[in-house]
Amino acid sequence: MTYQAPIEEILDCLENGVDIGSLAGRAGFENYDDELLKPVLEEAGKLASEVLAPINSLGDQVGAVLKGNRVVLPDSFASAFETYRDGGWIGLSFPESWGGQSMPRTLALAVTEMVHSANLSFGLCPILSQGAIEALLAHGSEDLKQTYLEKLISGQWTGTMNLTEPQAGSDVGALTTKAVPNEDGTYAISGQKIYITWGEHDCAENIVHLVLARLEGAPKGSKGISLFVVPKFLPDAEGNPGDRNGVKCIGLEKKIGIHASPTCVMEYQNATGWLVGEENRGLACMFTMMNAARLNVGLQGVGASEAAYQAALSYAKERKQGASADWKGEGAAPILYHADVRRNLLEIKAKAMASRHICYACAMAGDLSVSETDPEKKAAYKLREDILTPIAKAWSTDAAVEATSVGVQIHGGMGFMSETLGAQLFKDVRITPIYEGTNGIQAADLVGRKLSLANGAGIRELLDEIHSSVEDGRQSNQPVVVKAADRLRDATEALEAATEWMMEKLKTNKSEALSAATPYLALFGDVLGGHYLLSAELKRGRKGAHGKKLTPVLGFYAENVLPLARGKSAALIGEVDFTAEEVLALFEAS
Amino acid sequence: MTYQAPIEEILDCLENGVDIGSLAGRAGFENYDDELLKPVLEEAGKLASEVLAPINSLGDQVGAVLKGNRVVLPDSFASAFETYRDGGWIGLSFPESWGGQSMPRTLALAVTEMVHSANLSFGLCPILSQGAIEALLAHGSEDLKQTYLEKLISGQWTGTMNLTEPQAGSDVGALTTKAVPNEDGTYAISGQKIYITWGEHDCAENIVHLVLARLEGAPKGSKGISLFVVPKFLPDAEGNPGDRNGVKCIGLEKKIGIHASPTCVMEYQNATGWLVGEENRGLACMFTMMNAARLNVGLQGVGASEAAYQAALSYAKERKQGASADWKGEGAAPILYHADVRRNLLEIKAKAMASRHICYACAMAGDLSVSETDPEKKAAYKLREDILTPIAKAWSTDAAVEATSVGVQIHGGMGFMSETLGAQLFKDVRITPIYEGTNGIQAADLVGRKLSLANGAGIRELLDEIHSSVEDGRQSNQPVVVKAADRLRDATEALEAATEWMMEKLKTNKSEALSAATPYLALFGDVLGGHYLLSAELKRGRKGAHGKKLTPVLGFYAENVLPLARGKSAALIGEVDFTAEEVLALFEAS
Repeated sequence: MTYQAPIEEILDCLENGVDIGSLAGRAGFENYDDELLKPVLEEAGKLASEVLAPINSLGDQVGAVLKGNRVVLPDSFASAFETYRDGGWIGLSFPESWGGQSMPRTLALAVTEMVHSANLSFGLCPILSQGAIEALLAHGSEDLKQTYLEKLISGQWTGTMNLTEPQAGSDVGALTTKAVPNEDGTYAISGQKIYITWGEHDCAENIVHLVLARLEGAPKGSKGISLFVVPKFLPDAEGNPGDRNGVKCIGLEKKIGIHASPTCVMEYQNATGWLVGEENRGLACMFTMMNAARLNVGLQGVGASEAAYQAALSYAKERKQGASADWKGEGAAPILYHADVRRNLLEIKAKAMASRHICYACAMAGDLSVSETDPEKKAAYKLREDILTPIAKAWSTDAAVEATSVGVQIHGGMGFMSETLGAQLFKDVRITPIYEGTNGIQAADLVGRKLSLANGAGIRELLDEIHSSVEDGRQSNQPVVVKAADRLRDATEALEAATEWMMEKLKTNKSEALSAATPYLALFGDVLGGHYLLSAELKRGRKGAHGKKLTPVLGFYAENVLPLARGKSAALIGEVDFTAEEVLALFEAS
Repeated sequence: MTYQAPIEEILDCLENGVDIGSLAGRAGFENYDDELLKPVLEEAGKLASEVLAPINSLGDQVGAVLKGNRVVLPDSFASAFETYRDGGWIGLSFPESWGGQSMPRTLALAVTEMVHSANLSFGLCPILSQGAIEALLAHGSEDLKQTYLEKLISGQWTGTMNLTEPQAGSDVGALTTKAVPNEDGTYAISGQKIYITWGEHDCAENIVHLVLARLEGAPKGSKGISLFVVPKFLPDAEGNPGDRNGVKCIGLEKKIGIHASPTCVMEYQNATGWLVGEENRGLACMFTMMNAARLNVGLQGVGASEAAYQAALSYAKERKQGASADWKGEGAAPILYHADVRRNLLEIKAKAMASRHICYACAMAGDLSVSETDPEKKAAYKLREDILTPIAKAWSTDAAVEATSVGVQIHGGMGFMSETLGAQLFKDVRITPIYEGTNGIQAADLVGRKLSLANGAGIRELLDEIHSSVEDGRQSNQPVVVKAADRLRDATEALEAATEWMMEKLKTNKSEALSAATPYLALFGDVLGGHYLLSAELKRGRKGAHGKKLTPVLGFYAENVLPLARGKSAALIGEVDFTAEEVLALFEAS
């Protein structure tokens, strides 16, 4: 079985979860109309299941291959990219003025989720392009926009993000790639970048690298880095690909997964680059790219969890082993009829849906922010987006690592076989908690930066919102909803206790606060997931469309995830911060 | 860095954890002497780190290759097996009368842990031999013992377990391989077996297959299966390998890990086999093999977690990124000095040590049982072993999947690169929760069979033992120990509530009980791990050797794992058992 897009569930999340309809008529989304929602999703679903899913296994087996300095992918990838490009999918949420369709990013990300479900390797290519587009839109000069935006938005060209160097990973400030001003206003870029996703390939006529580099005499660390556009082919007078620039792929990493996504070592030798934004202000530009990419990686988590669910469910329906009282058919029971397998399936499904809600909510906050004109409201939406971004990235990808592992388990011995989709998902998804800022970095960002923004107003508002959904839930006439609301209240109180501790520690002992950042983010995500699942259920109820289909998911989540919140909160509050020396002593002495 | 055997920690677990010294002088262990403990471990540690670890990566890259019906491994594997064999390691715990050394199995398993840490693929070969030896010792005729035991125990020949067929995995009773009696008392075996670990290889002169098959007219299901010995080469009059038997390897599975462990498709065509035990009583023989193998797989989990810890720690010491207040040296801080990385390391370490304690305790219960003469005590030890076996297998391997994933995370981008040891461990270990009975089967075994044995006496005794370690802990003059004891008491109460619920449900609604089996086993393991870590700390304290080195591990475990017990207990007690139909509806309708 290959992937089938869960259109109804995605629609439910867009409508009853984030209320995407409220964007209709807002500035920038004049093209958006609720009537478009389903057809767009269905079209994208078809693309995902009919074009991208069928080449996923081939991508895993054959992968990207380096020939000289060329990267060769299976032919089907170039033609799939063509289909994707010609469908206008890359520009879905970008401005019409640059050839896009000015749709909400929330919708574009729902589309992206399906792309990731079908083919994580493929999905990375547009992610990177979108990051480059965001950076140029926000920080590029008019000239750069004119030269690159339409071509990137149409998908005629693709983009990349060049941050990492061997000694500069999470600490990008340590990079040493050099930029030397040329006389004509351009710069000569020289250095080596690693882990460059889709850094070289044969699916588009040009590749636009966004490269972080350091000018001579620039301040040390992250305050001395600048961002440059470095195209593979220099645009000629007509803007078409001209001379080859001084950049090439000199190696491909051998990875444990996403084999069809070329992870390149890129060498720059006096390559011509154009400055994006101001000198030494590359960090801000980088964060523009990164934030877009982070949410997108969160969606990879959602997509992979959903795909793992589908693959495991499909296997559980087919595979017959042993007897079960629940099975009324003849012969051995499909393993779906064994209670333990059902529990595993619900675990994947519940967290997949929770992570979808969290990611879409983050996207929606962004859409509301860009389209809002009232400065106070605009800032509040932005704050919400800022808080949700690290949770969307980290919680969703951690859940996906777990989901794909449980998916393997449901497959039994078959799950360990290379040709199984479940096995591929398990390997592919393991990179998602690492790239675009490790999940540890996300947690540090949430605790160290986001919690304190606006004096903690963003967190308070979010907690108030959760309490109000608890109150609504307790008024429900559905017992499962009331029970879920009670569980959510308990869990929210636990999160509040942890937050209070965290706010205090941030003032008195930041290192202790940071040591609990990862479990804090995990707890926060657990509670948010419950909140969004409950809110959507309530909204369905108000519409008189109580979701019989989705109620078990809420029930399972409330009864299996939320009860752990108190313990998680107690654990992080009580955490003993052992010093590095003690950990070292522990190992070295033994 | 390759693996360094943690001799001191293993010694601590054997001495202060399970008190292996109490075996000295007991029936069957006349050869054992506490003085031998350290030298034996050191010798085994050397073998693991100097012979087996260095070929681990090659095994991953090159793997086992099928040429015709021959399986070829890198040369270094055959010579490593020779070294292993010549050291007498396979026979360490088997009777001297058959060429073994009559050492406690607990010691043999400690040795095995190191083997698994160094090289999971290699370690599987002796596991399977040991399973075959156990079956022959317990159920084989005198003739079979004479023909096979010495050669298997010396390692001159190796053994395999042939259970699975395409339609018969967890449900072995569904197998269809046929056994037809020959006139000379042997049987003609025909059929196909899959997933046969080390089913064919070039490291030993003969391979002894233990094969489950069905006699014509045998009862359906698991009550109609019989066990046969089917050697690759038929022993000649002198007992040496003679004619080729009708068994061959016709395929190798392509797996996501343990590439140097050949996973064979075996074809039997009128192969000559000898019955082990009685006709149609193969299930009992199978469980003898399986139980031995299950604990051994638990040790694979322990070994992999320890190896993941070492690999991640080593990377965390070398890799420098960013600044940290804890770092007093020059330049960027090794990532070990970042609080989040330390927390990750402690998480791996604490669970690795807890799983070691659980596995060794299980082995020790077995040694006490076999050497005990008082029938009541013997039964009590056996009961303890029976209860601990599924927990040792499932909890340790689940912990290892998590540990190796956290290990990858600590490596950042490097963790996703194929050549990294951390990446190999992540892939290799994923099979351990699946084979020798999936962890779901282990949980069903614990709940469905083991809990009720002897009217629940085994569980009660274990809980009493935990409470007594809580009481001892609360008397300690070490604050961290008192705090740990308090946490353990809370967690134990939570386990007791879950156990009570489970016992009740087993009577009233077995399907609901089974649906909570996996979380119940997980909770049980969490509590046991805390119990054993605390008991060992208390014993060190009584010796005046309070473990400064290991106290942080106990503290971390008590503060981070045990606080989740109440929530886990509440979740499983409150579990809603959705029917398969509801899960199906959930998916199909969307």
